[in-house]
Amino acid sequence: MSRIQEIFNIQYPVVSGGMVWCSGWRLASAVSNAGGLGLIGAGSMHPETLREHIQKAKKATVNPFGVNVPLLYPEPEKIMDVIVSEGVKIVFTSAGSPKKWTSFLHKHGITVAHVVSSAMFAKKSEDAGVDVIVAEGFEAGGHEGREETTTMNLIPAVRKSVSLPLLAAGGIATGEQMLAAIALGVDGVQMGSLFAASEESSAHADFKKRIVDTDEGGTKLMLKQLAPVRLIKNEFYQQVEEAEKRGASVDELKALLGSGRAKKGMFEGDIDEGELEIGQCASLINEVKPVAEIFKQLIEDYNQAIDSLVLKRC
Amino acid sequence: MSRIQEIFNIQYPVVSGGMVWCSGWRLASAVSNAGGLGLIGAGSMHPETLREHIQKAKKATVNPFGVNVPLLYPEPEKIMDVIVSEGVKIVFTSAGSPKKWTSFLHKHGITVAHVVSSAMFAKKSEDAGVDVIVAEGFEAGGHEGREETTTMNLIPAVRKSVSLPLLAAGGIATGEQMLAAIALGVDGVQMGSLFAASEESSAHADFKKRIVDTDEGGTKLMLKQLAPVRLIKNEFYQQVEEAEKRGASVDELKALLGSGRAKKGMFEGDIDEGELEIGQCASLINEVKPVAEIFKQLIEDYNQAIDSLVLKRC
Repeated sequence: MSRIQEIFNIQYPVVSGGMVWCSGWRLASAVSNAGGLGLIGAGSMHPETLREHIQKAKKATVNPFGVNVPLLYPEPEKIMDVIVSEGVKIVFTSAGSPKKWTSFLHKHGITVAHVVSSAMFAKKSEDAGVDVIVAEGFEAGGHEGREETTTMNLIPAVRKSVSLPLLAAGGIATGEQMLAAIALGVDGVQMGSLFAASEESSAHADFKKRIVDTDEGGTKLMLKQLAPVRLIKNEFYQQVEEAEKRGASVDELKALLGSGRAKKGMFEGDIDEGELEIGQCASLINEVKPVAEIFKQLIEDYNQAIDSLVLKRC
Repeated sequence: MSRIQEIFNIQYPVVSGGMVWCSGWRLASAVSNAGGLGLIGAGSMHPETLREHIQKAKKATVNPFGVNVPLLYPEPEKIMDVIVSEGVKIVFTSAGSPKKWTSFLHKHGITVAHVVSSAMFAKKSEDAGVDVIVAEGFEAGGHEGREETTTMNLIPAVRKSVSLPLLAAGGIATGEQMLAAIALGVDGVQMGSLFAASEESSAHADFKKRIVDTDEGGTKLMLKQLAPVRLIKNEFYQQVEEAEKRGASVDELKALLGSGRAKKGMFEGDIDEGELEIGQCASLINEVKPVAEIFKQLIEDYNQAIDSLVLKRC
């Protein structure tokens, strides 16, 4: 049993990412019921919406679940108040410094995981007192790192720099990739894209279909001057690419993005004009399935991959 | 025994990349003597220089070795003539289409591997009749793919698209990473950076030291408008970054690069003004060691990582 399974009290070392417009109570509780750790994604929720999702998740599962809070959220204190008053026990913070919130969360008995994209920020997060590090590679749907370090290279570097329990994220969607990440030194994995495309995801059915239809090379990390995000190559992506090629300013890019662009694509299903955020591993996702089936396959493939490696000793 | 070990008749499924200014006869023969497949890098050699290196390699090892030919080489036919007349039996082609040369090489009894950076080009290479595919991820020192697909995501995608023996390349420098790649479905690995920093590499000692000193985040893929190359962040890199930020034209970038910039850095040891090409895994290389020691450690770590995975079944 890995340290991730112990600290979160879960059967499998698998966390579902807290993704905007995908990770509501339905997905989070399905993942927790399947033996992983489900996260509710607060990033696309008003505080009272989050409260509703937490309450529904509590009714839908007796297993542990958590909430992901992007720290660039306009009023994080309101979100944190909901989390504390609803008795949530696990919080994943991302997109910001863990310094401010970790001690607050600890005071309320909450376990804190923080998402980083470099070995340096992993060390800073450990120094800030977080309990778990999530190392997220360049392949991810929303990768913040200017260094562009990939999962294959980020994990060993972070593993050398911190001793905390460690999750890998970014471009992981299969049992073989889960095994690869664990071979590189993590205690578990966080997966986003795979669960974004699950039946229980809140995302629009047309977005899920578009994920399944995405081939290798079908995504690209864009908008690095704003908040970098990996986009499926649809019409909106083409507009962004064209703007970036001609050297558009930050203000021009902001105007092009507008507001509600991710909701439009991922939640409302406008797959041409919407912003479709996804990891590179979208190309490895072939079907929209219920979470329980996804877990069964994932763990089966993972174990089988271990068995076949035993025959590959040199 | 994997298909890579069989087709190349080698003890370990490990190939050393044919890197400009690093991969001469000394490195290639050391790798072949250690049980891997050593490649001579023709990219930085005049045809008669290549002939000299091949002849010396033949004297230095009885084991198989090969030559890497970047197909954008100004006069590939001269290089190919040397390869055929010296009786080389294995050629890795890269940076170009394998269509033109594969049948020529086959006619002379030469086994052909081709380096690709996407599943689509892997399929095209299989259709062109090559014998082995090398799938090279975004982490690599010289990554050609506009798609920026990382090793973690490229390997499974290529594995699905072709049935040929497959090598992974890009950001692999440790036994654990070798295992991760094999878990993802390849039959062996090609490593560049690790051998660039070996004692037997032709590179300048100061470049090797700079590789060892590179931390996570210390490289970046630049010059995407010319031939993309991953650079160590030295003074020359800063100049490129500044030029690209202000939207410099292709001609301006060509002028900035000038000629002989890679030789200056990697072979002559000007680590400030030279072009220092390396993979992201430079951060995982801690010491300049002889190839024999590198192999011993690599295979030991690889086998040990398999043993420890057996305890991590779910």
